[in-house]
Amino acid sequence: MDMHPPNNEHTDDEMLKIEVNLDDIPGEWLGHVMDLLFRAGATDVFYSPIYMKKNRPGVLLQLLCSKNDFDAMKEILLSETTTLGFRYYPITVQRMERRFIKVNTKWGAITVKQGISKGEVFQQSPEYDECKSIADKYGVPLKKVYEAVWKQLP
Amino acid sequence: MDMHPPNNEHTDDEMLKIEVNLDDIPGEWLGHVMDLLFRAGATDVFYSPIYMKKNRPGVLLQLLCSKNDFDAMKEILLSETTTLGFRYYPITVQRMERRFIKVNTKWGAITVKQGISKGEVFQQSPEYDECKSIADKYGVPLKKVYEAVWKQLP
Amino acid sequence: MDMHPPNNEHTDDEMLKIEVNLDDIPGEWLGHVMDLLFRAGATDVFYSPIYMKKNRPGVLLQLLCSKNDFDAMKEILLSETTTLGFRYYPITVQRMERRFIKVNTKWGAITVKQGISKGEVFQQSPEYDECKSIADKYGVPLKKVYEAVWKQLP
Amino acid sequence: MDMHPPNNEHTDDEMLKIEVNLDDIPGEWLGHVMDLLFRAGATDVFYSPIYMKKNRPGVLLQLLCSKNDFDAMKEILLSETTTLGFRYYPITVQRMERRFIKVNTKWGAITVKQGISKGEVFQQSPEYDECKSIADKYGVPLKKVYEAVWKQLP
Amino acid sequence: MDMHPPNNEHTDDEMLKIEVNLDDIPGEWLGHVMDLLFRAGATDVFYSPIYMKKNRPGVLLQLLCSKNDFDAMKEILLSETTTLGFRYYPITVQRMERRFIKVNTKWGAITVKQGISKGEVFQQSPEYDECKSIADKYGVPLKKVYEAVWKQLP
Amino acid sequence: MDMHPPNNEHTDDEMLKIEVNLDDIPGEWLGHVMDLLFRAGATDVFYSPIYMKKNRPGVLLQLLCSKNDFDAMKEILLSETTTLGFRYYPITVQRMERRFIKVNTKWGAITVKQGISKGEVFQQSPEYDECKSIADKYGVPLKKVYEAVWKQLP
Repeated sequence: MDMHPPNNEHTDDEMLKIEVNLDDIPGEWLGHVMDLLFRAGATDVFYSPIYMKKNRPGVLLQLLCSKNDFDAMKEILLSETTTLGFRYYPITVQRMERRFIKVNTKWGAITVKQGISKGEVFQQSPEYDECKSIADKYGVPLKKVYEAVWKQLP
Repeated sequence: MDMHPPNNEHTDDEMLKIEVNLDDIPGEWLGHVMDLLFRAGATDVFYSPIYMKKNRPGVLLQLLCSKNDFDAMKEILLSETTTLGFRYYPITVQRMERRFIKVNTKWGAITVKQGISKGEVFQQSPEYDECKSIADKYGVPLKKVYEAVWKQLP
Repeated sequence: MDMHPPNNEHTDDEMLKIEVNLDDIPGEWLGHVMDLLFRAGATDVFYSPIYMKKNRPGVLLQLLCSKNDFDAMKEILLSETTTLGFRYYPITVQRMERRFIKVNTKWGAITVKQGISKGEVFQQSPEYDECKSIADKYGVPLKKVYEAVWKQLP
Repeated sequence: MDMHPPNNEHTDDEMLKIEVNLDDIPGEWLGHVMDLLFRAGATDVFYSPIYMKKNRPGVLLQLLCSKNDFDAMKEILLSETTTLGFRYYPITVQRMERRFIKVNTKWGAITVKQGISKGEVFQQSPEYDECKSIADKYGVPLKKVYEAVWKQLP
Repeated sequence: MDMHPPNNEHTDDEMLKIEVNLDDIPGEWLGHVMDLLFRAGATDVFYSPIYMKKNRPGVLLQLLCSKNDFDAMKEILLSETTTLGFRYYPITVQRMERRFIKVNTKWGAITVKQGISKGEVFQQSPEYDECKSIADKYGVPLKKVYEAVWKQLP
Repeated sequence: MDMHPPNNEHTDDEMLKIEVNLDDIPGEWLGHVMDLLFRAGATDVFYSPIYMKKNRPGVLLQLLCSKNDFDAMKEILLSETTTLGFRYYPITVQRMERRFIKVNTKWGAITVKQGISKGEVFQQSPEYDECKSIADKYGVPLKKVYEAVWKQLP
């Protein structure tokens, strides 16, 4: 498995997009496929609905990965889907600097991920998993947790 | 199999919509299911993409049929899909009067279906299958066949 | 055209959902159809992608309206789309109380719509059109306008 | 929370479909909303993409529930989404008899859910969660687990 | 902002496709983002529904632009969406020659855009905005305006 | 028309993806366009729903073809759709070895396509058209035909 991309602002020329059209796989397998691809180092995996020949509703699987992870992705696609092939092409990924700050709420501190370009903060996203844990633990709407964080943002 | 709906303008209170969520069926079977449902009297059958639990891309099958055809639809859904149940509710269908006229083109006459309400012609649709036959037979773009019909419409 | 629904919390039993499947209309007409339906009193209009027979990508038009507006909707659907019919069924709509408050930002006051049930405020939504006007006028990201409002919410 | 529907073949007239259009909610909240609705007794919850006014990609939330669970659903929709209302209508649900059998594989026994109508077995579905556990535990493709079950089906 | 592409038939090797996956942005912001990207020189902007991890309905933003407009696009994506990065790859665009003719109708002349390849006219599209203006001004169905133009096409 | 790709495992660097956005074409034409593109040598053709400017539901046509077939594809896109241009980029296609075996069922032998990588069989897919023929001829559910094949797979 590949290292995560670095946190500083950078342009990454070593990435691929891999695509597979699927019309003969039960949808319930695809949740599992997504899990496996992420675990093996994909930086993103997503599905979109497509219309294929012979009136078939199909699914387009797209994944982004480092070129170093190509073999791991190939192995999973062959083993876990029903495809006889796939296609890919190089992409360039532009990533902002990522910084993590803590914001206090009445339920405890919550991490906020910042997206920074040339020193300026463009994005501030409360970490979903932490917010969800608090929502589940305290029986409070997730929306309220986000709102509490938003009010504290610098 | 049910009779086709009548050609005069009318409101039909004897119709149902049946719906099934499918997340464990290969997409390639669904083209066949659509064929069978139409053959058994469904007045329309269509699929839409849905997002289901556990990250599953699924398909929502919807069909419209007369209440008289309920049993035939049920039989196909149980036999040909993977579902353990389905849901339905009554709908009212408003249909325009349908009339068929002929329009001459250099490749021969083509049927145009008219939709009429209170004596006024609202829609004029060249019959797709006839246009496609001509396109295939004469090696002409389908678009050109439609354009030729449009120019002749009253 | 129908009156807007009242602002107090209520259950409305006088509503319909109308649906039309469209496979022979250019997409560019559908933006116009949406405008007309809203203007004629529809409380919502939306499209979803569907897969229809003969490998046709189609569009499902759905609209919500008061029963009093049925004739106006019918007129537009017949005149402006290519359909030969449509279907409908009664729905019950549950609406929260709506109240409007003002929140101050450095660009001026912005209206926030509150959704209230049994006296409790559940939703607080900055009015999109006002935020967009400010974003356009001051050349500031829309996101910043929303964030400024969120910080001031009670 | 409602009891699960019974296992015998039956028609259930006490069900509702509830629908909400959402155009102002971050997608990441919606996974949480789905979890909560299922936990509170919804028999199904699913999303579909819709096109709304002002060029907004939106999400249509649909859920199926017993009329007894209406209040629990309402509470979650108000608290956890951004909506100011929702709509609903009664549906009839037709459910096959459900029976559970065990099938042996080299990784142990796996439950198969059968769907039965008038005594005839129409569906046989290996339980996804059990197959996935085996796939994860033994490092074997999920597809292989299903294939092993399929071969043993009566 | 970039110049519009030239009107003669040509192949353009100086174009990019930029893509962003969005799962934490309210849909209502995305109409505004589309406006801004077009204004800044994008030659096309469109959204498609995607299924992302953790049961999230997401949106894939795709835009086409000249390499010269890359910085302007980047600025908008960082400022107006919630993303921490985006990806891109070079594309080649093949454009037909565009010519504009006028067609007379009883409501006045309407522009028709022609698409021409090697001197042959392949496409003839009435200008949507002009047709819509007439439809709004004269209270006539948009469909009728198009039909009137189609009949006059050479 | 191009030769079909060879049956042995290989990487194909001579492929293109061509894309067209369509917002002014009736959906019913698109089934015909798909047929023509396949007949002219496209290795895949599929549609996905997109949201375009001015509230237009549109369709993204994607096709995969050998570089040798570029001119044939271009000819069809110009003649049969309403587009004024299209875009394309090179892709690499990875294809497994394909082998065909026969499996016996009570309705006769059915071909199964195997996908093989480095000598290992990863996929085994009953040929849809043969299964469908049997289902139609013997009046048996397509599902039953597949299940019968699955049980016989090596």
